Amino acid sequence: MTGEEMHALVERLYPVCRSITGDGVRRTLEIVGEHLPLDVHEVPTGTQVLDWTVPKEWNIRDAYVKDPSGARVIDFRRLNLHVVGYSVPVRGTYTLEELRPRLHTLPEQPDLVPYRTSYYSETWGFCLSQRTLDGLGEGPYEVMVDATLADGHLTYGEHVVRGTSDEEVLISCHVCHPSLANDNLAGIAVAVALAARLEAPRLTYRFVFAPGTIGAITWLARNRDRLGRIGAGLTLACAGDPGPLTYKRSRRGDAGVDRALAHVLAGRPHTILDFSPYGYDERQYCSPGFDLPVGSLTRTPYAGYPEYHTSGDHPGFVTAEAMADTLETLWEAVRVLERDGRYRNLSPYGEPQLGRRGLYGSIGGRSDTREAQLAMLWVLNQSDGGHSLLDVADRSGLPFDMVADAAAALEGAGLLKRED
Amino acid sequence: MTGEEMHALVERLYPVCRSITGDGVRRTLEIVGEHLPLDVHEVPTGTQVLDWTVPKEWNIRDAYVKDPSGARVIDFRRLNLHVVGYSVPVRGTYTLEELRPRLHTLPEQPDLVPYRTSYYSETWGFCLSQRTLDGLGEGPYEVMVDATLADGHLTYGEHVVRGTSDEEVLISCHVCHPSLANDNLAGIAVAVALAARLEAPRLTYRFVFAPGTIGAITWLARNRDRLGRIGAGLTLACAGDPGPLTYKRSRRGDAGVDRALAHVLAGRPHTILDFSPYGYDERQYCSPGFDLPVGSLTRTPYAGYPEYHTSGDHPGFVTAEAMADTLETLWEAVRVLERDGRYRNLSPYGEPQLGRRGLYGSIGGRSDTREAQLAMLWVLNQSDGGHSLLDVADRSGLPFDMVADAAAALEGAGLLKRED
Amino acid sequence: MTGEEMHALVERLYPVCRSITGDGVRRTLEIVGEHLPLDVHEVPTGTQVLDWTVPKEWNIRDAYVKDPSGARVIDFRRLNLHVVGYSVPVRGTYTLEELRPRLHTLPEQPDLVPYRTSYYSETWGFCLSQRTLDGLGEGPYEVMVDATLADGHLTYGEHVVRGTSDEEVLISCHVCHPSLANDNLAGIAVAVALAARLEAPRLTYRFVFAPGTIGAITWLARNRDRLGRIGAGLTLACAGDPGPLTYKRSRRGDAGVDRALAHVLAGRPHTILDFSPYGYDERQYCSPGFDLPVGSLTRTPYAGYPEYHTSGDHPGFVTAEAMADTLETLWEAVRVLERDGRYRNLSPYGEPQLGRRGLYGSIGGRSDTREAQLAMLWVLNQSDGGHSLLDVADRSGLPFDMVADAAAALEGAGLLKRED
Repeated sequence: MTGEEMHALVERLYPVCRSITGDGVRRTLEIVGEHLPLDVHEVPTGTQVLDWTVPKEWNIRDAYVKDPSGARVIDFRRLNLHVVGYSVPVRGTYTLEELRPRLHTLPEQPDLVPYRTSYYSETWGFCLSQRTLDGLGEGPYEVMVDATLADGHLTYGEHVVRGTSDEEVLISCHVCHPSLANDNLAGIAVAVALAARLEAPRLTYRFVFAPGTIGAITWLARNRDRLGRIGAGLTLACAGDPGPLTYKRSRRGDAGVDRALAHVLAGRPHTILDFSPYGYDERQYCSPGFDLPVGSLTRTPYAGYPEYHTSGDHPGFVTAEAMADTLETLWEAVRVLERDGRYRNLSPYGEPQLGRRGLYGSIGGRSDTREAQLAMLWVLNQSDGGHSLLDVADRSGLPFDMVADAAAALEGAGLLKRED
Repeated sequence: MTGEEMHALVERLYPVCRSITGDGVRRTLEIVGEHLPLDVHEVPTGTQVLDWTVPKEWNIRDAYVKDPSGARVIDFRRLNLHVVGYSVPVRGTYTLEELRPRLHTLPEQPDLVPYRTSYYSETWGFCLSQRTLDGLGEGPYEVMVDATLADGHLTYGEHVVRGTSDEEVLISCHVCHPSLANDNLAGIAVAVALAARLEAPRLTYRFVFAPGTIGAITWLARNRDRLGRIGAGLTLACAGDPGPLTYKRSRRGDAGVDRALAHVLAGRPHTILDFSPYGYDERQYCSPGFDLPVGSLTRTPYAGYPEYHTSGDHPGFVTAEAMADTLETLWEAVRVLERDGRYRNLSPYGEPQLGRRGLYGSIGGRSDTREAQLAMLWVLNQSDGGHSLLDVADRSGLPFDMVADAAAALEGAGLLKRED
Repeated sequence: MTGEEMHALVERLYPVCRSITGDGVRRTLEIVGEHLPLDVHEVPTGTQVLDWTVPKEWNIRDAYVKDPSGARVIDFRRLNLHVVGYSVPVRGTYTLEELRPRLHTLPEQPDLVPYRTSYYSETWGFCLSQRTLDGLGEGPYEVMVDATLADGHLTYGEHVVRGTSDEEVLISCHVCHPSLANDNLAGIAVAVALAARLEAPRLTYRFVFAPGTIGAITWLARNRDRLGRIGAGLTLACAGDPGPLTYKRSRRGDAGVDRALAHVLAGRPHTILDFSPYGYDERQYCSPGFDLPVGSLTRTPYAGYPEYHTSGDHPGFVTAEAMADTLETLWEAVRVLERDGRYRNLSPYGEPQLGRRGLYGSIGGRSDTREAQLAMLWVLNQSDGGHSLLDVADRSGLPFDMVADAAAALEGAGLLKRED
């Protein structure tokens, strides 16, 4: 998928009103399913998942605040952020004074509509720009939220690309935010593009499209037996804004995924953050009982841009170029995970004679040794079973692929043997 | 005790002529004893203490150098620094020429009187300013030291505040310097103020007021059986000069006391020094056979200010503000030692649902999470039995007390259990 | 040996046409043998050494390219770099066009003649300056290489200075380069001077003068049983250029030799490089099967100066001062290796009373403690069997010799005992 195709997917997903449950998530998974075969799971309300319980399912058809003239001054149909997520049904008449505690604005960003939810406390409310609020008269207003909050299901989707190894790479995207483009439609689009690019990999790749927090917790609760297979993982979010890439380390801090991302980011403008128990679903994957090797890849990180969780996070905020760049970086990291390994030098006493094996130029005394030959020397020197190719790449300062190519050549010449 | 009260104590202690033995130490402990109940120990001359022997007891009543007119040009009664500590008795007439080898001055600080002692080699001498020396004629001079150096005792005092735990915090102050305010009357005053503030602590606090070197060695020799109880300790000195605080690490370098002091100093102007086997009695506590977790807290460190070991270190050199600041820092460190501990998250799989336990705001989607909530997430994430609250505070960058409060709230909700 | 004497040795060795085998190496070892008794080893062609085979022996008597007038436009007798090392015999007439693929120049350094060899692929060729090549007409040219490439031997020399300990320090110099002064006649000269200076050392010093790569491999193959004795080693090369010293760490990175060189270089302009599997024979000594504690000492490192492997590396490029400085540094490092050790404080509880043992000034209270006393305190404090004198020197910031002198004084007073 090109950056443009990813952007088109973001635009198509944008109008859907997602929440942690309900038809918005189902519709989102349907659209994703047009690109990838998805296993869609429905988990009933009331199911115990770890310390949590699957909540009631929320669906909304319409919502508005009408002024005395009958005009919809706040209109869900124009922008689904206008309703506080999980608002309970309401129909009534209110003065502005009565409504005010239920109206959420951003006084410091007066043109933007905030995004608010109330999943675990039954209430209702509206979000609007400060500018709009300032223009409202005393009322009375006709208020309507046509929603249902009832027993139902929590929905999530999975797509698996099987490799020759059972070891899994987990890519997790939250799918619970309504009309917010960078957070997380861009992440979904990049995940879809990555899945489409994987062909006959060595590792198994598991893509999880689930609502934030409760979705990840549900997935973890239902997959406890096989979490041991996860050798690396990433939550993918905020993948399309124009800022440089940010990698947040897993709780372990030095897991393979942490090393791989640090290596591929080294050649690009980037930031690396230590783990913190706040942000996206790495919070759940890295809880101490699981402590999975899952980091988080974003561009500008969680809550780090002014448009975050506002109507400013629309499809115009994310770019095809940024998503393509996120995808390429991810692809390089995948190549590291795919090709990395520990090798043993089978001729470890002195250097083996590369020349007679056709692996070395035969005119000596030249000072311009080529990097590829250097890569071979590094791989031979470090392949004592204790260092991985990524260790060699990091220590030598050579690109991972050059090191992995050198290892392949040496293995081909019978000088190297894979250890794990 | 306020800074002013500590300063008043310094002024009261200042005129007493202390040395490593004798009535000056006894009088000092008497005055300290007016604030704290003290166990005063008397150890006879000749007692073997580790590699040392308790020396003879020295007491001095008067000493002077009178010029031909009978005027006391050097007068012990004006300033006790004028006599070399442990000077043997003398009475005689000397020309300036004969006296000169026994007169100590500071040519580069011509107005100050130096502080000199000769504990382990029997001699006598006087200290005076270069200015005074320069004004002296040829003499002859009548010289008198009315002192006794005879079998007696070495005296030290202890005050213990018992906690619920046998684990001890050692606070050690040297009490052997005569009229020097920062070194170490200010340290004594801060220790007294700290002891007074402790109420029903968890840990047991042992305050040792002993002469430097030989006193610490004597205390160590007499307490070898229970040194294992010392979990943290500090020598307290130079606690009142106007410079910023300095912490010198214990020999271990990463003991709890080193971690605690680094944490509380982080928010203040300060210096942290690695251990070195020079300075105050941490030299003895950190000798390799004991290797106790004892650091040293000072303001300007040992020998680091021009007034050090001169008549310039008088009560005007130390301030109430500085002593109050030293005390507050010490108090924060004590709070860390008191409250720190390892906890276990009892709901370690995914985050526990804080909301239904009243530990979390119920309106989601807001980007301004409060630090207190972050502290709870950090405590939950790191409480795997391997990290202490101080580890959490250091890693998260949050203040220790906020982290400890979060742990208390989580323990109250049944989510956390203390491990040690 | 003085710097001037080392320089004279470089000048004497310079005209000899060395290669990896042949009479040039023998003549070089003969000259070295005038300074040191050498064991010269001859290893027959065809001998299997690790992954390699000892090649045919190459000897050359003359070589030239004559222009139509009969003038030697390229003349081996003027500079032995003019012939590609290991050129096979040839006699014939060639046009410039035909010769061109066999002529090696440095277009970017048009006045310099490059150094080229072809040890493992039978061919022939000439090296000349670009300036000379540009002046050549179309020919025809009479070409002659009067060389033999036939079964014979590989030659290397060893000199051993026995110490009281079997533990060995290996000093290895490559002796295979023809007329190149810094690389490696200067290294040879410094090694000779070091050997001459060693008198009754504690450690055993083994000097190996062998051709690069194949010589080190041959030596390793023939000495596998006793490599375990090597406690430290250095390849010594580029020891005479005017640049500052460079130490390249062993593969282990923290071996004793790495620590010793870092300590003695700390007071000089210098560079320390991490190990890399390229450069001199540390490549072989540090191959993963051997992993010997062998670093590399040079001034400007391998391939780091424009004269490297060109006719610009003549005796005028190396200086007596630089070689003397290399030798002094090496000598300081040798002193560290000789004197270092782990000691145990026999009076580890508190400080021992240095005064009564005559190890301490008797007038206390002075702030200007001498460094030598500080060194004693450091040695006493750290001598728990776990820290070496070099550890103490590094931690205290005191010079190694002062620390070692302090240890000697303490040992003399019965306060310290050597552990290993």
